[in-house]
Amino acid sequence: MDARSLADAFDAVDDTWEPRLLAELNDQHVKVARLDGEFVWHAHPDADELFYVVDGDLTIEYRADSEERSVRLGPGDLTVAPAGVEHRPVAHEETEVVLFEPAGTTNTGDAEDSDRTVEDVERV
Amino acid sequence: MDARSLADAFDAVDDTWEPRLLAELNDQHVKVARLDGEFVWHAHPDADELFYVVDGDLTIEYRADSEERSVRLGPGDLTVAPAGVEHRPVAHEETEVVLFEPAGTTNTGDAEDSDRTVEDVERV
Repeated sequence: MDARSLADAFDAVDDTWEPRLLAELNDQHVKVARLDGEFVWHAHPDADELFYVVDGDLTIEYRADSEERSVRLGPGDLTVAPAGVEHRPVAHEETEVVLFEPAGTTNTGDAEDSDRTVEDVERV
Repeated sequence: MDARSLADAFDAVDDTWEPRLLAELNDQHVKVARLDGEFVWHAHPDADELFYVVDGDLTIEYRADSEERSVRLGPGDLTVAPAGVEHRPVAHEETEVVLFEPAGTTNTGDAEDSDRTVEDVERV
């Protein structure tokens, strides 16, 4: 029931590709993350995932039904990666992102052996 | 998988207290709403509800365990009203809000006879 500030949350996060837990509700997690550069291709078999760009410039590349497409997101833009759809975030500059996804969703999904995998998400 | 712009969504909403469906994922709804003035006291017995202020000035008043408290939210701030906790949004000016809540959550919760109740939420 407290007020949480996105700006304060991002001020407390220096590292990239390290999502932090900002809030939880209805078994869903709201996370903040700084992204920069290319992430790994992955999918979340059972979880839709929302990306909301607070600041920066982000492309989400999608592979679905052997077709590739991408969406480019600036500040105030969002997209939803559906469960099971392969996707790869590519940040063209350091980008502040809010993620909304089920509790227990890991950042690299089915690409579990990635060195980018964060198992224990810290609170911010 | 499309990109959605919050600015475009709010541009398409003129009326206040009429939430619109912007996105859905994991049986949760992402809605946008313009608020102005005082809403009705209500609770959602089974649903936590997130309020994220995009622009404006919003107080969420809470009543829990016969105690009253409130949080004030400016742009970039959020709060989560836990399931079952009575709350009342009060917008001190016209305020743009994003709501995250389970699909099927009505805006007035257990205050069902309110003239503010919106049963059929349109998409934006």
